Amino acid sequence: MSLTKNKFDLSLKDIKEASFLMKNAIHYTALESSRTFSEITGVNTYLKLENLQKTGSFKIRGAYCKINSLSEAEKNKGVIAASAGNHAQGVAYAANLANIPSIIVMPQDAPLAKIAATKSYGAEVILQGHVYDEAYQKAKEIQKEKDMTYIHAFNDPHVIAGQGTIGLEILEQLEDIDSIIVPVGGGGLLAGVALAVKEIKPSIKIYGVQSKGAQAMYLSKKNSTLTSSEITDTFADGILVESPGDLTFEIINKYVDDIQIVDDEEIARAILMLLERSKLMVEGAGAVSLAALIHNKFSLKGNVACIISGGNVDVNFISRIIERGLVRSGRRVCLPTIVPDRPGSLQTLLAIIAKLQANVLSISLDRLGRNVPIGHAFVLVRLETKDAKHTQEIFDHLKNCGYSIDIDNSCS
Amino acid sequence: MSLTKNKFDLSLKDIKEASFLMKNAIHYTALESSRTFSEITGVNTYLKLENLQKTGSFKIRGAYCKINSLSEAEKNKGVIAASAGNHAQGVAYAANLANIPSIIVMPQDAPLAKIAATKSYGAEVILQGHVYDEAYQKAKEIQKEKDMTYIHAFNDPHVIAGQGTIGLEILEQLEDIDSIIVPVGGGGLLAGVALAVKEIKPSIKIYGVQSKGAQAMYLSKKNSTLTSSEITDTFADGILVESPGDLTFEIINKYVDDIQIVDDEEIARAILMLLERSKLMVEGAGAVSLAALIHNKFSLKGNVACIISGGNVDVNFISRIIERGLVRSGRRVCLPTIVPDRPGSLQTLLAIIAKLQANVLSISLDRLGRNVPIGHAFVLVRLETKDAKHTQEIFDHLKNCGYSIDIDNSCS
Repeated sequence: MSLTKNKFDLSLKDIKEASFLMKNAIHYTALESSRTFSEITGVNTYLKLENLQKTGSFKIRGAYCKINSLSEAEKNKGVIAASAGNHAQGVAYAANLANIPSIIVMPQDAPLAKIAATKSYGAEVILQGHVYDEAYQKAKEIQKEKDMTYIHAFNDPHVIAGQGTIGLEILEQLEDIDSIIVPVGGGGLLAGVALAVKEIKPSIKIYGVQSKGAQAMYLSKKNSTLTSSEITDTFADGILVESPGDLTFEIINKYVDDIQIVDDEEIARAILMLLERSKLMVEGAGAVSLAALIHNKFSLKGNVACIISGGNVDVNFISRIIERGLVRSGRRVCLPTIVPDRPGSLQTLLAIIAKLQANVLSISLDRLGRNVPIGHAFVLVRLETKDAKHTQEIFDHLKNCGYSIDIDNSCS
Repeated sequence: MSLTKNKFDLSLKDIKEASFLMKNAIHYTALESSRTFSEITGVNTYLKLENLQKTGSFKIRGAYCKINSLSEAEKNKGVIAASAGNHAQGVAYAANLANIPSIIVMPQDAPLAKIAATKSYGAEVILQGHVYDEAYQKAKEIQKEKDMTYIHAFNDPHVIAGQGTIGLEILEQLEDIDSIIVPVGGGGLLAGVALAVKEIKPSIKIYGVQSKGAQAMYLSKKNSTLTSSEITDTFADGILVESPGDLTFEIINKYVDDIQIVDDEEIARAILMLLERSKLMVEGAGAVSLAALIHNKFSLKGNVACIISGGNVDVNFISRIIERGLVRSGRRVCLPTIVPDRPGSLQTLLAIIAKLQANVLSISLDRLGRNVPIGHAFVLVRLETKDAKHTQEIFDHLKNCGYSIDIDNSCS
């Protein structure tokens, strides 16, 4: 029974079957209510935690479903994919569960953690080229040579059916959901969720979110025709797709209510809030849904679920997001000032700072600045404070003590 | 029906009732299997995610249970607690759910985020003193004056019953569990979980873990008598208790199989691994259970659940844990070397580093070092690399190019 009419004959039944097959193989991830985000946004906010999925993202669902659809002969020959990210890990892990061979072609400069994770799931990893396209070409060559099955990251009905199982789970977890917000790269997740949910309850709104740096599906939906779009650098490296799939677009064009874009500033804020308030590590691509919610990209009411699609992010990057957030909220500041160039003058400044309970992170001194009076030195102190108010108190107090503070020259 | 014989008559039935009462008020948190930690430890590892509990820790369970036990007259007068941390938020939130007034006395230098969170749950927050004891004295004064109910953080049968509900949930979630590892401060969580689980299935091993910096319950268990222990600074600021409770100790002494301690190094490693591999933000106190598991503090087999008790940690601290981890794993290094003191020589060095794909974080130059030959300058470059192997490649390559690298002087 095919409930929908698309040229690939993907139906709700396929998604339900995929869901049944997946039971016990993957995590049935939590749909957590969030009081924090509900208060901020004014709608009842729920987070579908696919960052806590096996392999750290939803991608394993599609890969699992695709592999399950193969014949025994196809399975014996194995599967191959090209990916620098979550799809690589999803395919490797799903192949491992099915006990079949897998080859993943990754760009040479793919993050080491992702290469190691993919290998640890039992895949043979081949490093090729510097961008995805080169890895893709290599994978296609090997596929032909070895007669393996290529697993596309999004434009495949079985992959879409697998991702759509998230929609079924959300409906099971919260029957009276009003809207679902979904991160979009190639559109596999959005297409699957939209098809599943709309076929069951068409009144539920389905929204997609792309990064401003990679907005092909946003433009395609807007133009009602498949549109490519150049990629610019963005935090959301998991959803950088230049050319969306025709199958995913067809489904999205039919079922999805709206797609909007968010910028890196908005994504960074969402990542930091998820970390601080929800105790969750989420990658850029995984946070665009919540970023769109907290920055009012859609007109919403009632119960809203954001799919948090993945958490595979380098801790290095998280460290920078935190630093950036601390600077923006006034808890990391640069204090540029002038002190007399004689013994004890630096100590006097530091004593005042210590008394005000700020923590010194670094300090530099220079006697040769253009605006430094003779017999004085320019000092730059990096401080950690309690908050913007505390910072202001410190600046005010130092001014009262006669220090000139060159705010314009501040590096924060 | 009282199944146990302790002087407070706390029984399994109380914990079961507490569990029933709590349904729908708090999160029934996930017990997630972790392939990563299972591979590392050789036992099937499960994480009970109380860091994703409302208010970011398990403390709301005990507070909720205690408030529920009060008479209407007591409820009307409200509740009071002294705490700088998770208990403050738990009591405030639980009072809010019960729609009764609450006062939380916190030390003046309690983290701003925790003060703000406690206020946001509707509590009146009073800041008093610089350490917990001063806040406690103040709370006791107000309690007498206003005839409110004081909610102890651990040494109270209702609080213990509330925390014990976690034990029941674990048994529901995974019947054939073999061991449960529990973080310990005052012992409320450990006592509750031990009583609940041992009364149902005595063969399940119950282990406690304390921080080396606050090991009073560890010593009490070892000495079979209530023992106080001085607190030293530790990452696990949520479990700094000098004097364990007599009630919690009585239960722990009876039911718990063993208590061990972990040091800050071990805690930091667990926090970073939870972040990198499990995408979870966990505070020091919440990570001691996993730290004990991965550092083989107990002899374990089969299915092991670690209670991840909380996630309320300043992102600033997390940022430092990450930096520290990057340094330790060789991904952040200092490169101290000598260059000729003439135009272009620094650029030559940086060109080599750039070619080897390392990222420069900071650079400093000094002509006046004791070991710097005349006509040369000492350079210190802070680098971000892919891993320890990449770092070694860079060092080796620079040596081949004639640079002396003063490893002993390296700041990493």
